[in-house]
Formats: sequence, C-alpha cells, structure tokens
Amino acid sequence: MESVHTIDWVDGSIEIIDQTALPSAERRIRLSTVDELVDAIVRLAVRGAPALGVAGALGVALAARRYPADQEALADAVQRIATARPTAVNLARGVRRAAERLPDGPDAVLAEALALHAEEVAASKAMAVRGAELIGELCAVPAPRVLTHCNTGGLATVTGGTALGVIAELHRRGRLGGVVASETRPLLQGARLTAWELGRLGIPYRIAVDGAGPFLMARGEVDAVVLGADRVCANGDVVNKVGTYAHALGAARAGIPFVVVAPESTVDSSTPTGADVEIEDRDAAEVLSFGGTDVAPGGAAAANPAFDVTPADLVTAIVTDHRIITPH
Amino acid sequence: MESVHTIDWVDGSIEIIDQTALPSAERRIRLSTVDELVDAIVRLAVRGAPALGVAGALGVALAARRYPADQEALADAVQRIATARPTAVNLARGVRRAAERLPDGPDAVLAEALALHAEEVAASKAMAVRGAELIGELCAVPAPRVLTHCNTGGLATVTGGTALGVIAELHRRGRLGGVVASETRPLLQGARLTAWELGRLGIPYRIAVDGAGPFLMARGEVDAVVLGADRVCANGDVVNKVGTYAHALGAARAGIPFVVVAPESTVDSSTPTGADVEIEDRDAAEVLSFGGTDVAPGGAAAANPAFDVTPADLVTAIVTDHRIITPH
Repeated sequence: MESVHTIDWVDGSIEIIDQTALPSAERRIRLSTVDELVDAIVRLAVRGAPALGVAGALGVALAARRYPADQEALADAVQRIATARPTAVNLARGVRRAAERLPDGPDAVLAEALALHAEEVAASKAMAVRGAELIGELCAVPAPRVLTHCNTGGLATVTGGTALGVIAELHRRGRLGGVVASETRPLLQGARLTAWELGRLGIPYRIAVDGAGPFLMARGEVDAVVLGADRVCANGDVVNKVGTYAHALGAARAGIPFVVVAPESTVDSSTPTGADVEIEDRDAAEVLSFGGTDVAPGGAAAANPAFDVTPADLVTAIVTDHRIITPH
Repeated sequence: MESVHTIDWVDGSIEIIDQTALPSAERRIRLSTVDELVDAIVRLAVRGAPALGVAGALGVALAARRYPADQEALADAVQRIATARPTAVNLARGVRRAAERLPDGPDAVLAEALALHAEEVAASKAMAVRGAELIGELCAVPAPRVLTHCNTGGLATVTGGTALGVIAELHRRGRLGGVVASETRPLLQGARLTAWELGRLGIPYRIAVDGAGPFLMARGEVDAVVLGADRVCANGDVVNKVGTYAHALGAARAGIPFVVVAPESTVDSSTPTGADVEIEDRDAAEVLSFGGTDVAPGGAAAANPAFDVTPADLVTAIVTDHRIITPH
C-alpha cells in the first residue's frame, strides 16, 4: 500500500488525519479556523517537522481568507500559528513563507502554501532515494536491520516521510533486514504511528521500549540507526524527539551508523548549536498518565522535555533532499 | 515515614506487598503454596534481586513443610522456585542456601531463610551508609541531584533498599539536591514503585521517561546516577533492568559518576562477563499494551529484553554491604 496522505487543502479547509486517534481509528478531520488549527498542532493531531511547515503555511492561507480587511486580527492569527510549538523550525518557517505573500492577497498565500506542500512531497522522494543509497554504502550487510525512533513517515510529512521513507525505499529494493521501532514515550509515536505505517507498507517490525535500543545495538541486533530531525543546527547538532540522543550514544558505542534524514527546510543555519534551541517542555500529565490511567502516585512531578540535542560528533550523516551533510 | 516492609514470614505463609497493585492500592497478600509463590514471582508481585533471594529461601521453607515425606515433589518444587526468573542470581542463590538445610528438617530450613531475611535488612543499612559517603566524595556539590532507574527501595529488598536506600540516607543527612526517577518501561517500576516510596519518605522527585535521562544529564540537571543490579559479573559488568546501559552511556558522556548499589549476594564471581548471563526476554504484551489498553496496532511484534548489560568500563563504583568495587 502507498504511504498515507497526512495533510491537504480541501474545500477551503485544511484536512488532516487525526494522529491522536491512531492506530485504533483512522479519522480525517477538517480544520476551518485558526483556533482549530492551533489546537490541532498543540495536541499533536498534526505533528512532524515537515508536516508542521505545511500546516503553518496553509494556516496563513486560512487566516488570509478569514480576515481580509482586519490587519490586526490577521497578524495576531499568524503569530499564534507560528508559535504554537517552539522547537521545530519548519512551523515558523512555513508560516513566514506564506505570510510574505499576504500583500498579494489570499489566493497568492494559498498558492505559496500549496507550492510548499508539493515541495515536501518531492523532498520525501529525493530523501528516500539518497538515504537508501547511503545506508547501503555505510552497512556491510546486504539487508541492514535498522532502528528508528519516533515517527518520520508519511504522517510526519505530507506523504512518504523522511527516515521512514528511506526505510520504505530499502524495503522496495529488497535491501531491508528488519526494523526496530522504539515506542517513543511519552506519546508513543513509535508504537502508535510508525508501527501503523510499517504495517500498511507490509514491512515487518518489532517495537521496543526506548531504554532497550542501545542494548539491542550492543547485542548486535541493529546495523544502523535512521531517524529524523526537528531542527539541524549550523554546527550539525541535531534537535529531535527526546530519546534520540540516547540512541546516538548507543550507536556510537556499537560502532554502527547514525543517520539523520530531514528536508533542507529543517536545516537552520541561523541557529549556531543545539544549546541555542528552545526545547519545548510539555505537560507533566503526558508522563504521569496513560490513556486516562494514572501511572504514578497522585501529586507526582515530572520532567518532560519533548526534544533533546544530539551533538554533531555522534552523527554519521544528515541526508536532506539536496545533499548529504557529514558534520565531522 | 520509615521504609516499606516487603516480605515476611507470617503464620506459616509468606506475606508480601503486592507490587502489581501499587501505587493505586497498598495490598498485602499471603502465599501459602509453591504455586502461589511462583506465580507471584513470575507476575512481579514480588521483585527486585534481594527480595527475590529471600522469597526463594522462604519458598523452600514452604515446600519443606508441604512435602515432608515426598522427596520427588519437594525437589520439583525447589527447582520450580529457583527457575521462576533466570537473570537475578539472588533467587537461585537464596533457594540453594535454604535447600542445603533440607536434610535437617523444615524448621532448620525456615531458620536459614529467616537468617537470610535478617542479613538483607542489615545489608541495606550497610549499603546506605557506605553509598551515601561515596556519593558525597564523588560529587563536588554539597547536595547532589541524583537520577535512579527502576525500583531499588524497600520494595526490591526486605526493607530500606539498595540504591534507593542510599538516596534516602543522603536525604536524612540533608545532602540530597533532588531525584529524577526514570519511569522504567515497560512495567513502570520507577513511576509506580520508586515514586510511591519516595513520596512515603518525603523526598521530592520528578519522573522522566527513560529516553530523557541522558539528555537531562547533558543539560546539567543530574550530578550522579545511582541504581541497583540484578547480577554483578566477575569482570564488573552489571546486569540490571533494561535502560540501565543507556543511562550509563549518558553518565559517561556527561562526566558524572555512575554508581551501582547491590548486596554482596548479587556479586557472582562464577559468571565471567555480562555476555555469559541469560537475559530474560519477557512477553511482548508488556510492551504492546498498557493497563489493558493496546498501544500498538493489532498483530504487532515486540522485542522485550527485561535486562541489559552495562560494561564495567562505564561503572564508576559498585557499593556492596561489604566493600566498594571499582571495576576499572
């Protein structure tokens, strides 16, 4: 089956697949107002750096149609979309790109957002081919077993994906020896979303808890780690879903490649290092309960950084739609 | 409040606190047959290396009373207890120690098991003092902030604990700057049990997902990692709850001490290295569902190693009730 289609412009609204309902329900919802869009971004109904960029641009198109004559309301709406989540550079960048066309009217804004949408589709294809070739070169075995973290498939982009697009391409070429999908606590994007996408694509996989990844590498069960990025800094530091750094440490110790796959739109040359990135700290409730069931005693506190920073020296290569970056 | 009392001999039965019910319910249950004990061990109603040793020894006392004249049934019962879980050396060792007294009759077996029970209480006290002093020496700050993984408190021993006993002792001395308790997927011993014990002891803590630990260390929020062991090998390799190795990699990279606290009964000089230890692979369902709710698509597979191996070179020190081992 082909990759899922995550975000589209339909009848003057943004249509997304509601990622909070997966894998138990495949539900498409329409976002017709800026409030609905911001809410969907905050509760992660739409997520993933490239998808957020497109959501942001289409959100400006929504706002431009909604407030054609109220500059103040329009500016406020644009600002609210751009800051709905702070860490991924793509959201603010998608908003900015579409907003630059506001003087040309709502149709021009929409055209710009749809151009970004099309570019992300093309970028996924380019990354899949370049990444699959690189993994083939880096791994001595004909069919590498890969570990991936969080969700980087069609659900994180428009369709196809970043790291998961590479994995799917390896599968199409008959060059994939298996997948370990880390579950990705607290919100389980790996267990819920990556597993769902891999199942759709007919790719065999095993889910592992996040703490098991480095040990599976040490035990010789993984030939390469392949995952995405929410922001790539100028020095090659990679900001991605929390747990990425621990997997990078495991890959370095096991001597296996650690490959990041992210569109050029994720590369932020204006951010010197990972230390300069605002890491989103999310609600403690995400850690302390699951599916409405408390997992910790009442009154417990939690540290819940949504992302972490992997220093450039642990990164073997960053594959974009334009190039391969080798930070060290 | 003083530490919980986890396992006792009451009226001819083993009485334990049912750890699967915590933190929502504090329930004591009596195990009167070998079947009930084996079931309690397998489903982790009683767990933790030192507690398993005592449970094993008391189990032999149960069996000796149950089968005073049936050598075959007795031998079978002893074997079933010893192999209920394979990775922790303490269980088999506790069983063996009590079983050696079988020729002297049931009362002698019970006396031996109760002696082990008393020794583990004393061992916890010795480790707490020695460990707190070591942490004080290793950390430059007057009140170190520590990260711990899984549960190593009174619930994992008889009372007091291993690593958590050290943390409690630091707190009693006014030398504790805070605790990060990693949640410890898949069974959440950190979020459920360690948090519950810390709350009882009045020690402030934050829970973090397992993947966040190394990043919190990199961000400078942790001064030392302190955790337990299910088996310490002759070369200093440490076998402990899965996720331990990833935290050790994080501590090494951050340049902070990684201290293992375990009774001498956990040190197994007959096992040369971690590669020689059978790592228990548990049911995939532990990873794929939570509290009866599926978190992954139907038909998903999982890798579920319950433990991992931390190579000796990543271990700063191992604190036992007798000594401090510095493996490198």
